[in-house]
Amino acid sequence: MHAVDIITKKRDGSPLTSEEIEFFIRGYTHGSIPDYQAAAWCMAVYFQGMTEPETVALTLAMAHSGEVLDLHDIAPRIADKHSSGGVGDKTTLVIAPLVAACGVPVAKMSGRALGFSGGTLDKLESIPGFRADLSVDEFRKALADCGVVVSGQTANLAPADGKLYALRDVTGTVASVPLIASSIMSKKIAGGADAIVLDVKVGHGAFMETEAQAANLARTMTSIGRGVGRHVAAVISDMSQPLGQAVGNAVEVREAIETLRGGGPADFLEHCLVIAGCMIMLAGKSQSEQRAAQLLREKLASGAALAKFRDWIAAQGGDTAVIDNPDLLPKAPLIETVPSPQTGFVAAINARAFGYAVVSLGGGREKKGAPIDHRVGIVLGPKVGAWVEKGQPLFTIHAGDDSRLNPCDIARGLPLERTARGRASSGSRHHPGFRTNLNTLPPHTPHVPRMAWRPFSVTICSRPSTERCSRQRMQ
Amino acid sequence: MHAVDIITKKRDGSPLTSEEIEFFIRGYTHGSIPDYQAAAWCMAVYFQGMTEPETVALTLAMAHSGEVLDLHDIAPRIADKHSSGGVGDKTTLVIAPLVAACGVPVAKMSGRALGFSGGTLDKLESIPGFRADLSVDEFRKALADCGVVVSGQTANLAPADGKLYALRDVTGTVASVPLIASSIMSKKIAGGADAIVLDVKVGHGAFMETEAQAANLARTMTSIGRGVGRHVAAVISDMSQPLGQAVGNAVEVREAIETLRGGGPADFLEHCLVIAGCMIMLAGKSQSEQRAAQLLREKLASGAALAKFRDWIAAQGGDTAVIDNPDLLPKAPLIETVPSPQTGFVAAINARAFGYAVVSLGGGREKKGAPIDHRVGIVLGPKVGAWVEKGQPLFTIHAGDDSRLNPCDIARGLPLERTARGRASSGSRHHPGFRTNLNTLPPHTPHVPRMAWRPFSVTICSRPSTERCSRQRMQ
Repeated sequence: MHAVDIITKKRDGSPLTSEEIEFFIRGYTHGSIPDYQAAAWCMAVYFQGMTEPETVALTLAMAHSGEVLDLHDIAPRIADKHSSGGVGDKTTLVIAPLVAACGVPVAKMSGRALGFSGGTLDKLESIPGFRADLSVDEFRKALADCGVVVSGQTANLAPADGKLYALRDVTGTVASVPLIASSIMSKKIAGGADAIVLDVKVGHGAFMETEAQAANLARTMTSIGRGVGRHVAAVISDMSQPLGQAVGNAVEVREAIETLRGGGPADFLEHCLVIAGCMIMLAGKSQSEQRAAQLLREKLASGAALAKFRDWIAAQGGDTAVIDNPDLLPKAPLIETVPSPQTGFVAAINARAFGYAVVSLGGGREKKGAPIDHRVGIVLGPKVGAWVEKGQPLFTIHAGDDSRLNPCDIARGLPLERTARGRASSGSRHHPGFRTNLNTLPPHTPHVPRMAWRPFSVTICSRPSTERCSRQRMQ
Repeated sequence: MHAVDIITKKRDGSPLTSEEIEFFIRGYTHGSIPDYQAAAWCMAVYFQGMTEPETVALTLAMAHSGEVLDLHDIAPRIADKHSSGGVGDKTTLVIAPLVAACGVPVAKMSGRALGFSGGTLDKLESIPGFRADLSVDEFRKALADCGVVVSGQTANLAPADGKLYALRDVTGTVASVPLIASSIMSKKIAGGADAIVLDVKVGHGAFMETEAQAANLARTMTSIGRGVGRHVAAVISDMSQPLGQAVGNAVEVREAIETLRGGGPADFLEHCLVIAGCMIMLAGKSQSEQRAAQLLREKLASGAALAKFRDWIAAQGGDTAVIDNPDLLPKAPLIETVPSPQTGFVAAINARAFGYAVVSLGGGREKKGAPIDHRVGIVLGPKVGAWVEKGQPLFTIHAGDDSRLNPCDIARGLPLERTARGRASSGSRHHPGFRTNLNTLPPHTPHVPRMAWRPFSVTICSRPSTERCSRQRMQ
């Protein structure tokens, strides 16, 4: 078997066999197939796509390129979730303890902020003492002790995926559905979870910009799940504006704690209940969405979810004092409120622009491994559909120093250094990150009907009951 | 400008600007753009193609990645030809001195045998003492002294092309017309010729297997020629069976000498007259094909072409005694004649199979840089359309030793080692390299009408007269 023949076969549109895909991924992982052949192959896959059996074979080959965790000695069914990345997406911080409080263990290997997209590990590290990089033994112990663990990927988790993703990033081959789907699923499978909920974001603040793209990715990932015998459901959720109010690290932890206390933004709470509901249904703890939602609300209301959060943070070395007093979280020295330049309805909030604005404040990173300022961020006021008067606060910027603080540039979402020569626009009274809708609706109309806001637009795979999934697996 | 953006732009089907192409090729040549980005880019070009201006820009960028020869101090118009590779194609050996004998200097940088395709330099090196790797100074001196020079590429000739071709070879991106055309043309342009005739082979023994592919390549190359202001014509010629009778190195030199003496196979002579005719027309020595052919035949008949051959071989250090006594050329110790297993018409001679057969005899090479046995080869008897009786010689094998000699495997064109386990077939009386056509035509019918043999099927660019080309260049 020769790498060039496999490239040529894919280039010419013929489906590859499992043996060919395994040969290619094994060779690439071990270095006998060089980067340049893998790059040509990825571009051929970009153009020719992959069949379902090919995508399953690729996923399994990447998952088995390193250690595949088996957590069944800890619990019969472990839940996990994956978000395709977004702005203000602190969901894991709430749903991990919430699902665990329902008796479903949650073991999640998570990621870090990159580009406009935030990272759960960076958010958690806002909590003093929290350790986000556990060894496999520590990961297993935390899961066994408190039923929830969230950590960085172990070094030997799907190494083929790590290598291939870095290559795709610089060769224009990221935007391929089978490659994205197999990349995500290989890590989830190697992470040892049985019940996996995929949260596919769609909109300006997501990597998938249309619902059709998101549905295609969701469909591909759930079909991989079927192909490898895991319980998988996918939810497509809106990321045209940030999720909740807070975008940053400490500010998002604060919002997550408020939500676990029974408060928090309505959109964010609803999102958490849907994702967590899917997880406990897939794990067999509930037979219907209604019952799942009821159970989850009980765990929030009783304080059980917050107690589980406390156990979890403590188990990973975090200072639980921040839970009772969020003012102990890192705080930005400069807080500036940005007023609305106009009266009208908020028609759109460009999530991607706000994501990049937080990067420019130092709260995200352009390159892997760059340090992060946990203190900074943006907290939104009125969201899409709301009415604002001129001068009313639109959002609040939490900045580390003056040089990072420029409301207009931040709202535009451009890194400050790139706009240094265009400073004439700094005096503008428009905030391009927001669009105010000066239509003729009277001020007392509470919502702009055609801006109907849909946090969940489509649900793929109809969240099957555990029993059905279980039966399917047994067949 | 970022390499990944250029890859993505091409991937998405947008034409690249000259600046982008120059940036990419310069970066790749100097190593700031790595192999893996170039590989992804080549695959994107494979799928999206290139416009004429893009192909011209790529050709110029590769030509100017190294030294571009200017030979105008030696002659106002220098001719060159390029063949896209074939089996038994000894054309340069005849046309270089023939065209030079007409007063048109010929300066050609040539290649070596690889795979089924022979190499002019290897053929010339059959002549004792012949030096095929000249320095630039020696190249210029040989051209100035005798009006003809054929040498290997100088190290600094279009280095970008050398690097990119090696990459394409292992990444499944060879078969892209704009990449093939720009690769050929960049070297021709850097070689300093003004009047360039492209001989595009089509058939089993060529890289282009259909006329449509060959016409596309020819059209692309002539359009590059127009784009860069050189006089370029293309000829599409048949390579479904080997050209002439001899396939090998010393055996082809012998056939070329016979042709320069006024003999040689009719198909090969006709091919030489067409190519040489194009060259002298492009160079302004003749206004019509008829006059060109007449002039060329005169130079053959008068011995002027043979005298020029003698001068040329001497100028490059070769022993001219072989011209008067071809028996002084390297001779194979074993010569075996293969009889026809059947009576009938020769319906096809698989040129590629014979090319590989010569490789298996040691007269070609599978890998660059491998040594070559100049003595070995195959000399065909009857060609396509001819009648053969059972037992009549089909071809003669010139081999170095017994272990290399296996008529059946050679005729099948498979390397001997690969068929070692299938030796049962060695006793077969069929020679798969040949197909005998046992149709119902009576034995006295001289030709099978539907096997009409076309050495030149299409001529692109209608070989414009020099004056027209010159005017076009001046506009």
